[in-house]
Amino acid sequence: MSIIVQKFGGSSVADAECIKRVANRVVETKRKGHQVVTVVSAMGDSTDHLIDLAKQVSKNPSVREMDMLLSTGEQVSISLLAMAIHALGEPVISLTGPQAGIKTDGVFSKARIMDITSSRLEKELDEGKIVIVAGFQGITIDNDITTLGRGGSDTTAVALAAALKAEICEIYTDVDGVYTTDPRLVKNAKKLNTITYDEMLELASLGAQVLQPRSVEFGKIHKVKIHVRSSFNHEEGTIVQEVSDMENDIVVSGVAFDKKSVRFTVYDVPDRPGVAKDIFKTLADKSINVDMIVQISREGSLNDITFTLDRDQMEEALRVMKEVIVKIGAKDVTCDDDVAKVSIVGAGMITNFGVAADMFDALAEEKINIELISTSEIKISVLVRKDQCEKAVRKLIDKFDLAEDSIKSIE
Amino acid sequence: MSIIVQKFGGSSVADAECIKRVANRVVETKRKGHQVVTVVSAMGDSTDHLIDLAKQVSKNPSVREMDMLLSTGEQVSISLLAMAIHALGEPVISLTGPQAGIKTDGVFSKARIMDITSSRLEKELDEGKIVIVAGFQGITIDNDITTLGRGGSDTTAVALAAALKAEICEIYTDVDGVYTTDPRLVKNAKKLNTITYDEMLELASLGAQVLQPRSVEFGKIHKVKIHVRSSFNHEEGTIVQEVSDMENDIVVSGVAFDKKSVRFTVYDVPDRPGVAKDIFKTLADKSINVDMIVQISREGSLNDITFTLDRDQMEEALRVMKEVIVKIGAKDVTCDDDVAKVSIVGAGMITNFGVAADMFDALAEEKINIELISTSEIKISVLVRKDQCEKAVRKLIDKFDLAEDSIKSIE
Repeated sequence: MSIIVQKFGGSSVADAECIKRVANRVVETKRKGHQVVTVVSAMGDSTDHLIDLAKQVSKNPSVREMDMLLSTGEQVSISLLAMAIHALGEPVISLTGPQAGIKTDGVFSKARIMDITSSRLEKELDEGKIVIVAGFQGITIDNDITTLGRGGSDTTAVALAAALKAEICEIYTDVDGVYTTDPRLVKNAKKLNTITYDEMLELASLGAQVLQPRSVEFGKIHKVKIHVRSSFNHEEGTIVQEVSDMENDIVVSGVAFDKKSVRFTVYDVPDRPGVAKDIFKTLADKSINVDMIVQISREGSLNDITFTLDRDQMEEALRVMKEVIVKIGAKDVTCDDDVAKVSIVGAGMITNFGVAADMFDALAEEKINIELISTSEIKISVLVRKDQCEKAVRKLIDKFDLAEDSIKSIE
Repeated sequence: MSIIVQKFGGSSVADAECIKRVANRVVETKRKGHQVVTVVSAMGDSTDHLIDLAKQVSKNPSVREMDMLLSTGEQVSISLLAMAIHALGEPVISLTGPQAGIKTDGVFSKARIMDITSSRLEKELDEGKIVIVAGFQGITIDNDITTLGRGGSDTTAVALAAALKAEICEIYTDVDGVYTTDPRLVKNAKKLNTITYDEMLELASLGAQVLQPRSVEFGKIHKVKIHVRSSFNHEEGTIVQEVSDMENDIVVSGVAFDKKSVRFTVYDVPDRPGVAKDIFKTLADKSINVDMIVQISREGSLNDITFTLDRDQMEEALRVMKEVIVKIGAKDVTCDDDVAKVSIVGAGMITNFGVAADMFDALAEEKINIELISTSEIKISVLVRKDQCEKAVRKLIDKFDLAEDSIKSIE
């Protein structure tokens, strides 16, 4: 009998009614003749409530105790979902991350799964039970409870699918699948039937919130077929897998955008070794993640260095940079949050050298000025003025034929 | 260094402010030079909230899943208390029941502690940490989470004190200690400095809600000195121990009463073997707990049988009994909930035969009619009309010199 791992996020189990709906969906899968393992997150905003409680007792709570606290959220969900499934007459058991044998390293609040001891899981499946597993959590070798960090339930599901050699890992979410771009922005964005792990990784790290990047990495390493689909209907979603059977001749798979990018420019940086290190090491030491980096050489001995980072870290980065420019002898630093990053992603790009030119050409047609360019093997990102972001995305969707030619485009 | 186990109930950790107050109290004990293990219950009404959620998803939730659900309540408390203590600058760690090595049988919702593997606890204490343990929960040999049932945190605390050979187990509560009778009824009830386990057991089972009876049994078996005291002040409370040092010449320690007793009478029961069994076995099969039983023999071949039980089970018991009397050939059954049970308790009674007579004499002086009498080695209970309960308790407090001769009596 084939094993199917299903994962439902916090919004899918937000209240008793939602939980009952998920219970029906799980039972349906079981009755189709599969063995089912279901991973769930904490109910709706229960995690926020717990974080709020922690802040009331301590300004700076220890990460170990935060993990102890937050892991209760998923434990509540799994027990309630098990009760709801039991009420439908199916044998079922809930397991915490530790009980499910999910062993992690000891990095509290963002632990990584090291190993899964699946004997308990297999025993319960063999007894004909649906097994409900708490996402987002595991246990260290010292028997301490850890959490996997943001979106960790996706990783739990994919890791369990790998350990159990599941036929597929279904990630249920509030969207129908992975789109060529954000359907909230571009109404006729096209749903992709399949996508490769690498494409999904680029899309995820570029702001598409469908799947946690670490879960995709895990899927890629262990060759777990991931099906991203809606919990509100029975439509097929998007399959993430190594070879994109149907669409491997498609060069560009999607267009991503990020309106939270901030551009920093450091002026008149002395042209000597170690200067770039001084800047980016100092930012890294403060846990500030820098995204695109471009250095513009000019005549003479002074350069400008430009980079982008997330708006949430803008103030801190600016404070840090004001100290750094004194140290390295640069003239000034400015930051500009009126920008947006627009990216095209596609595994086919590696062998299609004209893609970048096509992209720049399309943007030029719309008189969109490109302020910064950054490329990887399967991605090209550009920085544009924020008010031109939407126009750029629509143009690229057209250019690379990524729109859905369906009734949707009339909306 | 001596180990002190402290237990704080749900009302002591009801919100962030309460948790900070408990944190101060725990740190205070540590700074006096003790090793401290603190057991806490779930916050205030959080357990009720979880039960409510369970009812929304299932009419008849499985007990295993209920334990999975309810055990999260204590896990929230321990992590928050650990954070609050950490904020005060003391090294601290929280442990769930399973992490603290509390092994139970597999009777979900009312599991019994079978063993405590205290190696983790001892390691953390040796490292100078305050250890916060989740009350009310443990783990089976199959790695399933269990709860100990109502008041289980008291049992957790006493069991840990036994396993760690603690100097004392302090139970913090919202009363100052154990009183000779309910101070809400009798203003000048006297606080006892010490009481024996047996006396405490009788008082607890007679309705005094200070300590969970199973925790007292555990204390008696493992000779754990239990200090019942207030979390709102630093007054000495009541010590529960084997030999009541100061008061072992006191015959009667306290007066308990229970206004929730209901009296059943079965009339004209045929006088043949097996009839009593038919009645009480049938009630036991329906999980109806019978308290006092008295059979009144009369001339000829028909008897009356009288017994008491809790009002919560009155309707069901009456339904059951109406069937039973047909089966055994009795004439009728009646029930009367206008009664109250009044009891005197004291280890000294065993060697003081006149106590019962003194009790009946005192009640007669007040013209209180005794409807039923039941006795044990250290307890005498009588059933009286409900409106005479208070008068009976006051009289017995006077008779056995159990009042506080203090300013309190003026209130």
